[in-house]
Amino acid sequence: MTHKHIRIGMVGGGDGAFIGAVHRIATRIDDGYELVAGALSSDPNRALSSARRLGINDERSYSSFSAMAKQEKNRKDGIQAVIIVTPNHMHYPVAKAFLEQGIHVICDKPVTKDLSEALELKKLVTKSGAFFALTHNYTGYPLVRHAKHLVDNDVLGKLRVIQVEYAQDWLTEQAESTENMQAQWRTDPEKSGMAGCLGDIGTHAFNLACFISGQKVQQVSADLTAFVSGRRLDDNVHTMLRFDGGAKGMLWSSQVAPGNENGLKIRLYGEKAGIEWAQESPNELWLSLFGEPKQKITRAGHGAGEEANRLSRVPAGHPEGYLEGFANLYVDIAAAIHAIEDGADVRSVQGLIPSIDDGVEGMKFITAVLASSANDSAWHSLNAHQPNAQSPRGKVNE
Amino acid sequence: MTHKHIRIGMVGGGDGAFIGAVHRIATRIDDGYELVAGALSSDPNRALSSARRLGINDERSYSSFSAMAKQEKNRKDGIQAVIIVTPNHMHYPVAKAFLEQGIHVICDKPVTKDLSEALELKKLVTKSGAFFALTHNYTGYPLVRHAKHLVDNDVLGKLRVIQVEYAQDWLTEQAESTENMQAQWRTDPEKSGMAGCLGDIGTHAFNLACFISGQKVQQVSADLTAFVSGRRLDDNVHTMLRFDGGAKGMLWSSQVAPGNENGLKIRLYGEKAGIEWAQESPNELWLSLFGEPKQKITRAGHGAGEEANRLSRVPAGHPEGYLEGFANLYVDIAAAIHAIEDGADVRSVQGLIPSIDDGVEGMKFITAVLASSANDSAWHSLNAHQPNAQSPRGKVNE
Amino acid sequence: MTHKHIRIGMVGGGDGAFIGAVHRIATRIDDGYELVAGALSSDPNRALSSARRLGINDERSYSSFSAMAKQEKNRKDGIQAVIIVTPNHMHYPVAKAFLEQGIHVICDKPVTKDLSEALELKKLVTKSGAFFALTHNYTGYPLVRHAKHLVDNDVLGKLRVIQVEYAQDWLTEQAESTENMQAQWRTDPEKSGMAGCLGDIGTHAFNLACFISGQKVQQVSADLTAFVSGRRLDDNVHTMLRFDGGAKGMLWSSQVAPGNENGLKIRLYGEKAGIEWAQESPNELWLSLFGEPKQKITRAGHGAGEEANRLSRVPAGHPEGYLEGFANLYVDIAAAIHAIEDGADVRSVQGLIPSIDDGVEGMKFITAVLASSANDSAWHSLNAHQPNAQSPRGKVNE
Amino acid sequence: MTHKHIRIGMVGGGDGAFIGAVHRIATRIDDGYELVAGALSSDPNRALSSARRLGINDERSYSSFSAMAKQEKNRKDGIQAVIIVTPNHMHYPVAKAFLEQGIHVICDKPVTKDLSEALELKKLVTKSGAFFALTHNYTGYPLVRHAKHLVDNDVLGKLRVIQVEYAQDWLTEQAESTENMQAQWRTDPEKSGMAGCLGDIGTHAFNLACFISGQKVQQVSADLTAFVSGRRLDDNVHTMLRFDGGAKGMLWSSQVAPGNENGLKIRLYGEKAGIEWAQESPNELWLSLFGEPKQKITRAGHGAGEEANRLSRVPAGHPEGYLEGFANLYVDIAAAIHAIEDGADVRSVQGLIPSIDDGVEGMKFITAVLASSANDSAWHSLNAHQPNAQSPRGKVNE
Repeated sequence: MTHKHIRIGMVGGGDGAFIGAVHRIATRIDDGYELVAGALSSDPNRALSSARRLGINDERSYSSFSAMAKQEKNRKDGIQAVIIVTPNHMHYPVAKAFLEQGIHVICDKPVTKDLSEALELKKLVTKSGAFFALTHNYTGYPLVRHAKHLVDNDVLGKLRVIQVEYAQDWLTEQAESTENMQAQWRTDPEKSGMAGCLGDIGTHAFNLACFISGQKVQQVSADLTAFVSGRRLDDNVHTMLRFDGGAKGMLWSSQVAPGNENGLKIRLYGEKAGIEWAQESPNELWLSLFGEPKQKITRAGHGAGEEANRLSRVPAGHPEGYLEGFANLYVDIAAAIHAIEDGADVRSVQGLIPSIDDGVEGMKFITAVLASSANDSAWHSLNAHQPNAQSPRGKVNE
Repeated sequence: MTHKHIRIGMVGGGDGAFIGAVHRIATRIDDGYELVAGALSSDPNRALSSARRLGINDERSYSSFSAMAKQEKNRKDGIQAVIIVTPNHMHYPVAKAFLEQGIHVICDKPVTKDLSEALELKKLVTKSGAFFALTHNYTGYPLVRHAKHLVDNDVLGKLRVIQVEYAQDWLTEQAESTENMQAQWRTDPEKSGMAGCLGDIGTHAFNLACFISGQKVQQVSADLTAFVSGRRLDDNVHTMLRFDGGAKGMLWSSQVAPGNENGLKIRLYGEKAGIEWAQESPNELWLSLFGEPKQKITRAGHGAGEEANRLSRVPAGHPEGYLEGFANLYVDIAAAIHAIEDGADVRSVQGLIPSIDDGVEGMKFITAVLASSANDSAWHSLNAHQPNAQSPRGKVNE
Repeated sequence: MTHKHIRIGMVGGGDGAFIGAVHRIATRIDDGYELVAGALSSDPNRALSSARRLGINDERSYSSFSAMAKQEKNRKDGIQAVIIVTPNHMHYPVAKAFLEQGIHVICDKPVTKDLSEALELKKLVTKSGAFFALTHNYTGYPLVRHAKHLVDNDVLGKLRVIQVEYAQDWLTEQAESTENMQAQWRTDPEKSGMAGCLGDIGTHAFNLACFISGQKVQQVSADLTAFVSGRRLDDNVHTMLRFDGGAKGMLWSSQVAPGNENGLKIRLYGEKAGIEWAQESPNELWLSLFGEPKQKITRAGHGAGEEANRLSRVPAGHPEGYLEGFANLYVDIAAAIHAIEDGADVRSVQGLIPSIDDGVEGMKFITAVLASSANDSAWHSLNAHQPNAQSPRGKVNE
Repeated sequence: MTHKHIRIGMVGGGDGAFIGAVHRIATRIDDGYELVAGALSSDPNRALSSARRLGINDERSYSSFSAMAKQEKNRKDGIQAVIIVTPNHMHYPVAKAFLEQGIHVICDKPVTKDLSEALELKKLVTKSGAFFALTHNYTGYPLVRHAKHLVDNDVLGKLRVIQVEYAQDWLTEQAESTENMQAQWRTDPEKSGMAGCLGDIGTHAFNLACFISGQKVQQVSADLTAFVSGRRLDDNVHTMLRFDGGAKGMLWSSQVAPGNENGLKIRLYGEKAGIEWAQESPNELWLSLFGEPKQKITRAGHGAGEEANRLSRVPAGHPEGYLEGFANLYVDIAAAIHAIEDGADVRSVQGLIPSIDDGVEGMKFITAVLASSANDSAWHSLNAHQPNAQSPRGKVNE
């Protein structure tokens, strides 16, 4: 079989951006993609120089994403998929432009700047017939997949408690007043939406809990805070969770917790066993069968299952990390796109790849958390009919 | 200076009990006490055989705690202090009996079975002029003292976030239906009061957070669950916290989390630094000054302060544990009692020893958590005037 | 059954000493002993004031150990056992004095200042009919006992590799030139014998390897160094080991390794499994059955066996430490002495308590290591007939 | 600046091989290379099918490495560098073929099958004027670079002790009798040379110790064992080391240590500080300044220096792993080749990239270890004039 790259373009991710470079590395690791086009910046000069640095031909470096969508559509060798790595508020318009051309979309999270947009986007995805992937990259870690496998196969029994947290410290001081571009847009409601830490990393924690548990969050009781003086969006999130399968949980997310670099951790406890996983030590998963010694399951090691091993490149003890976890999403996305090219129905190839539905769910979470926090932590349902409505306290709205 | 033991008696703690033996070891480690009397069991035979096994003379083995209080008072060599290690519901009557004789009281936690009793007990303590200590033993760990020292000395700056948890797994199954005596009384409202896991270990977590932070919890929003079928008291506690100094926190306490043996952990984050400590690795404390590498401070090691070192017996790297931490309370209590004997005012010797006020605070916490959980997690104040009152949702009662 | 203390005396361990206090705490933890006599210091004033501080009657505070041996022998309530916690060079004469009176001896390690003394002492022990225990305290940790149990029960299969190390850092600088009394005698050949770090902690590592493996070291190839300028005894030990059961090993011991507080660690690998244990985390033992996930066995937790649990006082997750491990030796010694008092043959009660034979073995190890190092690391047998003989290189002397 | 890939070819690394795939990923991560030619297998069919799978044109898939060297030399778009990932015995002839064409060589370790070949190869490299890199990939980890930086900048003071180990367990049983191709050639003297575990991973440990310390090993005293019945090469290596800067060390390397996946660890101790690093947790480096608390330095985190950060792609807390560490070598190699193309002298661009000299040093180490072990662990010099000579015991040959 001859090797076939998927032709991709990128919107956002020019010089100085962070997550664009991560996506590009992730596409290269397993050699499944070729980056051939880009609208890398809204600044045409930066767009062009960035494109050259990445080996994109000048004629396929666009200064406008809508021009890119149209022109790529018309090329014989046009891109098959676009990767969207702009600030949050641009996700929707860019995704729309490419979906309307039938081009597959790979979009960073959170999916949009609010729930209305997300619901709208879901309609566009359905209508387009194109494939849509949301890069909740932490679901790509092999041992996260294995954790899900353990839950799915009832190794834990009925789940009772889910503790998830995502703590960082980089916004402990008022970094948005410095040259830090990452801090600037992430604390700016115009670019981030109404959720700060909540949208940036809280949604990752939320998504991870749902991914592994296979349960949806039904209600939240939340207390948001902006600790840093002058900050316009939350930098600390305290939330209690009730899941639809009967589990209860807590989610803590913070960007003002000194000593935490990228502390995404999850613990799930069921009637028969508990598991624990931390993103900073991603090559180990702790399994405690009640009444037995704790087991350390390692990536590609003894005790790891097929689903985890399929996504491992090197033997146990040779650590894989964040980039490989990210690349695993791209492995699955490549397989999905190849399957579609080979005639598969777009609705049949999603597998474990985070979807527009996961994006909608994340926006429901953000919406409900904001509402609960504004309503003195009253429980709010994720499925309230009017997403932005404030329910009277004491009545949970479902 | 010649060595002088403090003469002590014990109520509860006969054969088969757990915490009584712990107290006895704790009193012996630093050789400050002599156990000379006991009402070790309500069953006279068990009381006597237990006493003999402990080297207590038959004439000072009592089958009734009230008899013990009176007779010991009348002996020239009578006990100076009593240790109360009965199930919770007996703390109040036993403490009362000894306080009325002016005998110092060292009482296990939670202080009483409900808040009314605790408030009543506080009056009795004040009236008695005797010394009262509550054995929140985890405050005795040297590095917990050092953590408090760091907070007190503004190393962390203004506190923002306090995450505390206490997870165990021994009640994952319905242990109370087996021969397990510990499980039986701890899940029985008659003996434990209305709080299960909440009273047994949740109060330790609460106390630790207050001890280190120097802040009081003002309000709680709580969600209690009894996951195990047929269980009458909570076995999982989810609580959000608001502290009077402006910090916010979460407290998770569970006895159904497989893989957790005695997982008391606390993390405090301020404007300038964060600290982390876990009871299962008590000889290390992690200090993260924002912008610097994380430091591992070890008991008696470089970076530990005087207050911690004063309570260390062996050099760094020679682990001290639970029993030594417990014994540290008894070191301080002995000093307090000696000071009183030497004429000090009882109100001047409390130092860092947990007091009746801490006990009252713990009962307020239990009361507020129960109320909040019963009221769909509405925020409840710890200082509501009527502790058992249900406030209408949406109005925080202060 | 009424409680009966064993009456003990102590030689050495006056104010300012370290290990004497440790022994005293260890005897108190489980309430098996009563300290009634002492020759705590060769300085009569310090001896007396130390004794008073410990509650020893003036008449039983001796300024000479030989007077103590004789007078205690003649008392009706004389001591049943003596604890020797002097610097190494005094172990032999003190032990001799008490053995000659038929008083049981509990002696700190290393057993004597050289092999000749150790062999002589062995004869005295045999002749005396008294019980002799050597406090290689690390063998008292419950999970060390469990490790031995796993090896004994062939869980590891035939042993291949044993890696043991004991690293500290407190002699990184020339501490012996300061007021540090511990550093002074430990680096002084007159008081320590010819082995510095080797005798002080290397022997612990050696003993632990033999204890768990059940194998004897047959040969050593060693390279000793005194890194600190002016130091007269080794402060770093590099040794390769060949065991009589076919295993091979390495032993590293150092007191000049910054960042190591009390880093005693051992790893044993057999045909079927490996185990790992570290003194600084003594409540966990790692078991790796080949082809299965690594298991974390915890003291008193799931997977720990009877032998370990017998020596646990508090449940899993409530850390026990150095002092409890030390106390476990005293638990076993108390049982041995009671058994002897009840008529058992002294040769039948040793059990797992380190014996004079272990002491002799340790001195053979020191002797062989010194010889090998002096002979450019040629392999030296521990059973060379003339312990101090230098064998011609290339011929292993056995 | 437009992006320019370096054109590379590969010898070895066809379907089923391990390390070839690792090299290819490493070249792609930072997009510096394009794989355009290969002699991927000595089996022409496998060579061709492997090439196709990798997107190499049929005309540049060679069945003979010598044909490849010649033909690529003659193409205008011929490869600039070749990557050699064959079994060890083929390194020399392949490297020779390409060097003779002036093509740069990137060669896996150990550099050759014996020291004579390595010395010969060194001559060829010098003569060729081409660039030569040896992929001791563990030197590419950012915190290994930082460790070297700390030593170079005298943060540790004069080095005293270096403990290095590399333990695995995959050869615990007789895997070479199964279908395991990796096990087959690695235990076959024809393909591996005379060193088994010693050559496969012991050389990595050796190289790492030299790289970080900046010292050369002067002498070794070694004890090699083949524990598994029927195994023809060593599977366990015990070695004591003497460095030319005065440090002493131990090196343990094993492939029969159950529970060890890829346990490369190094600890260096100097007069002022110690550092510790383990490959399985590569994103943290422990620094202990004597007299201060231990510091956890993280990749790209506070405390990591420029040299480390230059080689980081993602922020602290987002783990990078084995593949990124490997890729860092390729980053440096790309820079070196570009510099040469831009006119730099080949002798000026080596920087921290492992060189033919490191390869020679590694073969000297293997040679000396084999000689010492054969000579009952007598110290052997790495610079003995006749590398295979056996010196009479008792005389160290220098």
